[in-house]
Amino acid sequence: MMRNFLPRCAPRAAFNAQRSAARGVFSLQAATSRPYSSITPPEAKLQDIDPSKLVIETTKNPKPLKDAKDLVFGANFTDHMLTIEWDKQTGWHQPQITPYQNLSLDPATCVFHYAFECFEGMKAYRSASNQIRLFRPDKNMERFNKSAARIALPTFDSKSLIELISKFVKLESRFIPQQRGYSLYLRPTMIGTQKTLGVGPPGSALLYVIASPVGPYYPTGFKAVSLEATDYAVRAWPGGVGDKKLGANYAPCIVPQREAMSRGFQQNLWLFGEEEYVTEVGTMNFFVVLKNKETGQKELITAPLDGTILEGVTRDSVLSLAREKLAPEGWKIIERKYTMPELAQAAEEGRLVEAFGSGTAAIVSPVRSISWKGKTVNCGLKDNEESGETTMKMKQWMEARQYGDEEHEWSYVCE
Amino acid sequence: MMRNFLPRCAPRAAFNAQRSAARGVFSLQAATSRPYSSITPPEAKLQDIDPSKLVIETTKNPKPLKDAKDLVFGANFTDHMLTIEWDKQTGWHQPQITPYQNLSLDPATCVFHYAFECFEGMKAYRSASNQIRLFRPDKNMERFNKSAARIALPTFDSKSLIELISKFVKLESRFIPQQRGYSLYLRPTMIGTQKTLGVGPPGSALLYVIASPVGPYYPTGFKAVSLEATDYAVRAWPGGVGDKKLGANYAPCIVPQREAMSRGFQQNLWLFGEEEYVTEVGTMNFFVVLKNKETGQKELITAPLDGTILEGVTRDSVLSLAREKLAPEGWKIIERKYTMPELAQAAEEGRLVEAFGSGTAAIVSPVRSISWKGKTVNCGLKDNEESGETTMKMKQWMEARQYGDEEHEWSYVCE
Repeated sequence: MMRNFLPRCAPRAAFNAQRSAARGVFSLQAATSRPYSSITPPEAKLQDIDPSKLVIETTKNPKPLKDAKDLVFGANFTDHMLTIEWDKQTGWHQPQITPYQNLSLDPATCVFHYAFECFEGMKAYRSASNQIRLFRPDKNMERFNKSAARIALPTFDSKSLIELISKFVKLESRFIPQQRGYSLYLRPTMIGTQKTLGVGPPGSALLYVIASPVGPYYPTGFKAVSLEATDYAVRAWPGGVGDKKLGANYAPCIVPQREAMSRGFQQNLWLFGEEEYVTEVGTMNFFVVLKNKETGQKELITAPLDGTILEGVTRDSVLSLAREKLAPEGWKIIERKYTMPELAQAAEEGRLVEAFGSGTAAIVSPVRSISWKGKTVNCGLKDNEESGETTMKMKQWMEARQYGDEEHEWSYVCE
Repeated sequence: MMRNFLPRCAPRAAFNAQRSAARGVFSLQAATSRPYSSITPPEAKLQDIDPSKLVIETTKNPKPLKDAKDLVFGANFTDHMLTIEWDKQTGWHQPQITPYQNLSLDPATCVFHYAFECFEGMKAYRSASNQIRLFRPDKNMERFNKSAARIALPTFDSKSLIELISKFVKLESRFIPQQRGYSLYLRPTMIGTQKTLGVGPPGSALLYVIASPVGPYYPTGFKAVSLEATDYAVRAWPGGVGDKKLGANYAPCIVPQREAMSRGFQQNLWLFGEEEYVTEVGTMNFFVVLKNKETGQKELITAPLDGTILEGVTRDSVLSLAREKLAPEGWKIIERKYTMPELAQAAEEGRLVEAFGSGTAAIVSPVRSISWKGKTVNCGLKDNEESGETTMKMKQWMEARQYGDEEHEWSYVCE
């Protein structure tokens, strides 16, 4: 039986007095020279997330475990969910773990109208010695806070949320299979819950974490994908929010993705500007391995964090691993802008060695080719190859730390 | 008593088989060369919205009417709501009018994660002869369909939804006061309701309309506002979605708006590019009245619909009214790009006559000044004036058609 989770909403008379509308948001409140800061107490004085106050209500109807082979990404969830409400008078309320249940929200709730929503994607892994481990949760929490702040949602103490997620994951540990490639996908989400239509900072919010057991992204080994470079739509721009993990960045990506698929490609590649800078692939960061034209030296290149690129945790991990393991072999590890014409030329000259996407779900995802301006840019794989060498190595290096084969500060043991 | 509205979700096994993740959306389905189009039957074969199937369940607990003076924009709603579900197997389900109630949604629902949401803002007015009238609903429906299509949500027959909204508004007509300036604000909304985390086109959706009685935007007459030009954040970009009424365009606007307010301004003015093109004000379109430098002729200028400007219904109405009523007096009505330096120079030369925002809530909203690069650009009002002449006229012309004082094709009588 699903029950309904109904966020409490603190009174917001002061906030409601702000008369703002979707197309016409001049505020009367402001017009009478009452600055916003005077109606919202500074967050520092509000209650932060307090893990010691956690209340747990376990389910009376535990779900049966699915066969590992039947796991589909993000389609089945564990028994419980972690929820923490926030309002601008109190700050963060008592954290709760409850049975997984529907959210009950007024149809005027601001998350439905103005996309007050941000999220994270992270995983919990079961080690050979049966420990449950998170991978770099501090990086996810750092980004979660940045995303929330950018859309006027509340921020929180990262360590406290990691502690709570850790407890939640331990409670759900029966859902994490032991096999390599399996994990528990975690989806921390924050939504604005103010139930008025005025366009303004939400006076209340809900942070929740749900968990979905997932199998390996490539159950039968890597499959290289073919991309279509998108030239008619732009994912992100300077001064925009493309570097934050906001819901707002995702829905607009679907049509270009579907267009690429309708022409037989598996994903689209996002370019930017007249120079046709290569930015991201679908919803992953993008890496290429080039041989330097002058020196013949191998270079691992990805776009820099200039505000248009999502600050991927996997991206950061790939760069770190490359600096640690490939740089000593003479590689250059470079964050810089690079263009589609540059890739096409490198491919023609046999210098485009490898290309792959990076993200939490697949870790790395090898790319066979890019369709661009009617031509096919081959990304270095032979016909019978599904992955380049670096792509394969990256996956192994990463998994060794994710599953705790290699003890490393990136791996966080849940207690 | 609030009850919970629980959208039905048709089975989506085929769709769920698409293994895509937030950071890593290469689809295995696609990797096996099964194009998207083969799993989604073309919409033409699906059921469209059918007003003849409307089912009405009236409330047993009618709400008391609020005092007109206590009405706050979008904070109180009428007794009922109109809902229509969609899924990709059936198309649009039976339309329903039910008591206003919470939505009950799985926490994995795609509207919470990827901003599958778009909306409209429109109003119903009571005429002197007690007719209930909508204003240009065809324009709202046209834009609603464009917004939905851009984020892979379903489209629908505009006339059918207008017919249903018309019935809904008639049922709620006791909430519409007769006084000038009062109306029933209508919020048609569409959200994706698929409850899986894969990033892809939603397999189900919910269209709903809620209604909130509202008072005049300026209860005691116009109040001119002061703006701050935003130079550190960019609202929209060519190839982006800034011309669609998506939730995604709103949450990112709050911080710049709040920043402007913290420095004592009522709203921010959105600029674009190195040229500092003037685009929108807060969440309204923006108009200026300039005297031409050479001819002295008056010009009403607004930014063109180049993909970065919301296609405001009020914007369109202002332009039409100006062409009809001001052009014969020798005015030029111009949609073109114009810059902040150009406005500043015109102000210095005494040629910036007037400036105003336009939107459904306020109709027009007069602007006193723009703070830009440390200087104040005065928009033509004297200290004791709260509105320019054109702004005032526009409001009167518009209201005459909205309230049916002047019979006009823009006004749609609800039956």
